[in-house]
Amino acid sequence: MAAEGGEKWILTVTAQTPTNIAVIKYWGKRDEDLILPINDSISVTLDPDHLCTTTSVAVSPSFTHDRMWLNGKEVSLSGGRYQNCLRELRSRASDFEDEKKGIKITKKDWEKLHVHVVSYNNFPTAAGLASSAAGLACLVFSLAKLMNVKEDHSKLSAIARQGSGSACRSLYGGFVKWIMGKEQDGSDSIAVQLTDEKHWEDLVIIIAVVSSRQKETSSTSGMRETVETSELIKHRAQEVVPIRTIKMEEAIAKRDFPAFARLACADSNQFHAVCLDTLPLIFYMNDTSHKIISCVEKWNRHEGLPQVAYTFDAGPNAVLISHNRKAATLLLQRLLYYFPPQSDTDLDSYVIGDKTILKDAGIHEMKDVEALSPPPETKDNTQRNKGDVSYFICTRPGRGPIVLTDESRSLINPETGFPK
Amino acid sequence: MAAEGGEKWILTVTAQTPTNIAVIKYWGKRDEDLILPINDSISVTLDPDHLCTTTSVAVSPSFTHDRMWLNGKEVSLSGGRYQNCLRELRSRASDFEDEKKGIKITKKDWEKLHVHVVSYNNFPTAAGLASSAAGLACLVFSLAKLMNVKEDHSKLSAIARQGSGSACRSLYGGFVKWIMGKEQDGSDSIAVQLTDEKHWEDLVIIIAVVSSRQKETSSTSGMRETVETSELIKHRAQEVVPIRTIKMEEAIAKRDFPAFARLACADSNQFHAVCLDTLPLIFYMNDTSHKIISCVEKWNRHEGLPQVAYTFDAGPNAVLISHNRKAATLLLQRLLYYFPPQSDTDLDSYVIGDKTILKDAGIHEMKDVEALSPPPETKDNTQRNKGDVSYFICTRPGRGPIVLTDESRSLINPETGFPK
Repeated sequence: MAAEGGEKWILTVTAQTPTNIAVIKYWGKRDEDLILPINDSISVTLDPDHLCTTTSVAVSPSFTHDRMWLNGKEVSLSGGRYQNCLRELRSRASDFEDEKKGIKITKKDWEKLHVHVVSYNNFPTAAGLASSAAGLACLVFSLAKLMNVKEDHSKLSAIARQGSGSACRSLYGGFVKWIMGKEQDGSDSIAVQLTDEKHWEDLVIIIAVVSSRQKETSSTSGMRETVETSELIKHRAQEVVPIRTIKMEEAIAKRDFPAFARLACADSNQFHAVCLDTLPLIFYMNDTSHKIISCVEKWNRHEGLPQVAYTFDAGPNAVLISHNRKAATLLLQRLLYYFPPQSDTDLDSYVIGDKTILKDAGIHEMKDVEALSPPPETKDNTQRNKGDVSYFICTRPGRGPIVLTDESRSLINPETGFPK
Repeated sequence: MAAEGGEKWILTVTAQTPTNIAVIKYWGKRDEDLILPINDSISVTLDPDHLCTTTSVAVSPSFTHDRMWLNGKEVSLSGGRYQNCLRELRSRASDFEDEKKGIKITKKDWEKLHVHVVSYNNFPTAAGLASSAAGLACLVFSLAKLMNVKEDHSKLSAIARQGSGSACRSLYGGFVKWIMGKEQDGSDSIAVQLTDEKHWEDLVIIIAVVSSRQKETSSTSGMRETVETSELIKHRAQEVVPIRTIKMEEAIAKRDFPAFARLACADSNQFHAVCLDTLPLIFYMNDTSHKIISCVEKWNRHEGLPQVAYTFDAGPNAVLISHNRKAATLLLQRLLYYFPPQSDTDLDSYVIGDKTILKDAGIHEMKDVEALSPPPETKDNTQRNKGDVSYFICTRPGRGPIVLTDESRSLINPETGFPK
C-alpha cells in the first residue's frame, strides 16, 4: 500500500451537501437495519448557501483508526449505521494513484486504511432541521470521492440511506423522490431526481425555528413505535401515499402550486396524525406550530388560492413554502407581526439566510417589526407572540452535493490529518 | 283541551340528567339531519352530583309559544335540532289527566300547547364538558315525562340523538353504547346500557379543565370536515372501531383495567389523529394537554401496569380515569405537583366535586400543594406549570336521568310558568 518507504502522506477531499425537507413524508421502516421505508417519499432540497453540511475526509497510512469530529467535537463512528456506510463504501472503492504526490492505493488497501472525518453544519444541529440527513449524505458523498467509488448518485443514495433514511434524498438538488423499492436487500430503495433546482425557481422557503422546552421523541424510535402500534399507518402507507405521490409528482412537474400546497399540507398533517395514533402517543407540533398553521390557513383562505404551504418534520419547526417572492414577502411580514423577537434579540440574527426578502418586506430595523400592522385577514386584535419563535431562515430550493476544490475550505489540516 | 273555563293551570316536571364522556369516540356523521354516526361509540356516565343538567319543563294553555332559558338567559328554540326533538316528542305524547287539579290533556292537545323549558348546568357550559349532551338529554327526558310519552329510554335516546348526537348516551347511567344502526330513518341508532354504575364502582374520574386561549372548532363543523377531507377516517370507522368496540365491551364486562386503559387512550389518540388528518386541520389538544398525557404515561410506565387512562374530547380538557381510589389519590398529588394553581386561587375552588380524594391525598390547604415533592418517576427537576389548569373536578361513574319530585328543586315558578 501507499508509496514506498512508509511516507506519511495524507489524501483529503472536502464536499458540501444540502439538507432536504419532505413534502410527502417518510415515516415507518419495513427493515430497521437496512433502513427500508414502508412508502415512497418526496422532498425538496434546500439551498446549501443557507443550510448545508461541509465534510472533509482524509486517509493516511499514519491513521490508527477511523475517527470523526462533528461541529468541533469528536463523535464515535462505532454505531451500526456509520459502520454500514463505511463497509459499503470500502467494498466499492477503486484503485487510486497520484503520481506527483507519490500516492498509490489499491482497491484492497482501502480495507485496511483508516479515515478521518471532520464535519460541520452551517445551522444548529439540535434545531431539528434534518442535520443527520445532510450529515450522512455528506459523509457518504465525500468518502465516495476519496475512495474513488465509481457508482452514480442513485447507488450512493442507497448507501447514505443505510446511515440515515432521509439522507438518500440529499444526494440531489431540486425535487427528489425516494423510491421505497421491493428487494429484500434494499438495492432498489434509492433516491432519484424528479426535477433540478432550476425547474421551479419561484419558490421561496421560510423556516420558523420554534422554541421548544419539551424533549422530543427521536424519529428512529418514534417511527418504530408508530409501525408497531398505529392502526392507521398501514392504511396510510399502502392506500394513501401511493396515490398522493403520483399527484405530487404531477403538481411538481406542472408547477401547480395550489395542488402542491394542498398535498404538502395534507401529508404533513397525516404524518402528525399517525404520530398521534401511536402508543405512547407522539406529538411533535406544539402550540406555536399550531399558531403558525392558523396564520397560514387564515391568509390562504383570505386570498382564495394558497399562497403558502406548510410542512412539519419530527419537531415543532415550520417549513413554509411560498408560491413566489411576492408571497414570501407578505408571509414574512405576517410571521414577524405574529411572532416578533424578544426585546434583546437583534434583527440580523432573528432573520437569517436570504435577507433580501426582509428588505423587500420593508423591514430594515427592529422598529419596523414593531410598527407592522395586523394583516387584513385578522379580524380581532390578535396577540403578538413574542419569543415563541427562535429565528427565521429564508431560503429556496437548492442544488445537490458538490466537491469543494478550494483547499482553504478543507476542515482538515493537510499536515496533521486532524481538524483545523 | 285543558279544564273548562280557560283556567290558567300550569303543569311542570323537573329532571336531572348526567353528562357522559366517550371512551370509544363518536366522530363523523353519515346523516347530518338525523345525526347518524359512522361508528358505534361507548361512554361512561359521570356522577350527576358533580356534573349534570337540571331541567324544568312546563306546559300551560296560557303559554303563547315555546320558550327556553339556559343558565339564566333566554335562548332560541327555533334551531332545527330543538325542533326535531319537540316534533318527535309531541307525536308520541299521550293523554294526561290530573283530576285533582282539573287538568285534562288529550294526545291531540299536545300539538297545540306550548312549553317553557328552564335548564341549568352545575358546571361551566363553555368548559367543553359535553354540556350539550346533558342538556339535550335532559330536555328530551323531562319533556317525555311531561307529555306522558310511554317510550322506553332507548327510544327516547333516538330522539335525544337528533338534538345532539352524544346526548343519546346520557339516557343511562354506568357504561353506555351508542349503536350506530343501519336504518336510513335512524330508528335503530339508539343507546343501550352495557352495565350500570354499580358494576365498576372502583373507578375514580378526575377532569382537568385546561385554560385555553384559542378558539376551538365546533364539533359539528369539525366532524363534517373530517368526513369530507380525511383519508383515514373511513378506515377508522370501518376497520378499527368495530373491533375496538368489542374489545372495550369485554374489558368493561370483566373490569379489566389495563385493557380498558389501553383501548381508551388509543381511541382518544386516534380521534385526535383523524382531526389532524383533516383539511384545514383541527387541533383540540394543546401543550397543557400534552403535558398531562406525559405525566400519566410516565407514571403508568413507572408502575408497570396502567394506573390511569386518559381521554380528551373536542377540547384541551383531560378526563383521567383511575383504576381505584388509591390510584386517584396518587394521581391527584401528581396533577397538583405539575399543575399548581395561580397564587390568587383558593384550593376550594381549584379542586371541586368529590373533595374527599383531596383529603386522602393529604392536601388540606394551599401550602400542602406547594410542599408536594416531585413524583419518583420524575428524574429531572420538572417544571411546575402554574396556571395551566383552571381547575380539577373529582368524580366517578354515575346514574342515569331521574325525575326530581321535590317541587322546591323546580326551576320554574309554578304560579307564573317563568324561570324562578
